[in-house]
Amino acid sequence: MPRWEPNALERLHTAAIELFAEQGYDATTAAGIAERAGLAKSTFFRHFPDKREVLFFGQEALNGLLAAVVADAPADATPLEAVGAALEATGVAFGPQRWEAVRRRQEIIDAHPELRERELLKREAMTGTMATALRGRGVPEPVASLAAQLGDLALARAYTRWLDPASTSAFGELTRQALDELRSAAAALG
Amino acid sequence: MPRWEPNALERLHTAAIELFAEQGYDATTAAGIAERAGLAKSTFFRHFPDKREVLFFGQEALNGLLAAVVADAPADATPLEAVGAALEATGVAFGPQRWEAVRRRQEIIDAHPELRERELLKREAMTGTMATALRGRGVPEPVASLAAQLGDLALARAYTRWLDPASTSAFGELTRQALDELRSAAAALG
Repeated sequence: MPRWEPNALERLHTAAIELFAEQGYDATTAAGIAERAGLAKSTFFRHFPDKREVLFFGQEALNGLLAAVVADAPADATPLEAVGAALEATGVAFGPQRWEAVRRRQEIIDAHPELRERELLKREAMTGTMATALRGRGVPEPVASLAAQLGDLALARAYTRWLDPASTSAFGELTRQALDELRSAAAALG
Repeated sequence: MPRWEPNALERLHTAAIELFAEQGYDATTAAGIAERAGLAKSTFFRHFPDKREVLFFGQEALNGLLAAVVADAPADATPLEAVGAALEATGVAFGPQRWEAVRRRQEIIDAHPELRERELLKREAMTGTMATALRGRGVPEPVASLAAQLGDLALARAYTRWLDPASTSAFGELTRQALDELRSAAAALG
């Protein structure tokens, strides 16, 4: 019976980012990540199918959060208001204490096309999650997909700005700004 | 010196789709694709880095077309009109005689997560191409990115409808419809 390891997921995630940064992504193995985390290799594979997935730990929880906040938005909230509330809620995952780790993680992803591909798949799943939650509120297509897509663009823009060392705004505030800009841009497309 | 092989790209693309459908994607090798196409294995690797890329042959030409049509749109065309003209131009790649091959290609992609990932990367590049071309026309951000994203969504919707056996509309007509629907949806987001 597998032993319960406290915080195994976070420990593996942190160890992976350290090793990827120290010795490179290609030279790092799942066994090496487990060792750095002080865990058995079998523990690694109980949680992740491969070393690529470790970098996307937390994505499912994020999707669950987005779906829940969209669903729980007030009945009279517009689709973009519901999406905006969901984006703002993701700020819990992007506090100042996580900035350095998030920045290093993104550098690794940007340097490896296979990780960029995986990242796009995760983004698509996230956009799909928001669109599904909006349809659950009775928002018709293609409005639901479009609102979710605006949410995806806003999140990407907020994320890029948040990673800018010159920025001092909180993540939630950046998502509000980005979504407002996109709302204006959508109106201008007329 | 490499021998000139007429239509090597198309022949490899066609052979790949045939073999993927017959014996499965995983069981098919680059060498097998070259053999089926009546070409040397070295010819395969002169054109493609791996068997995954064969399925995306033509994507760069499509990007070039999109960029050119956006750039050449009348000076007074709105961003969405320029994007609409570009989408309509892609209809040349989706004539009735290509329907069966495109459908089979998409079935293979949908069945393999690694191909889905590559497809998303290609779509992102295509969206980026349109956004860059719009900025070249003086369209500011985030309007350029948003218009390009609407173009991407419209293309995806047109493509899905075109692949529906019950559909009888030409591809260009489907892109026009889809973009019109998204324009209305964008206005409704207000």
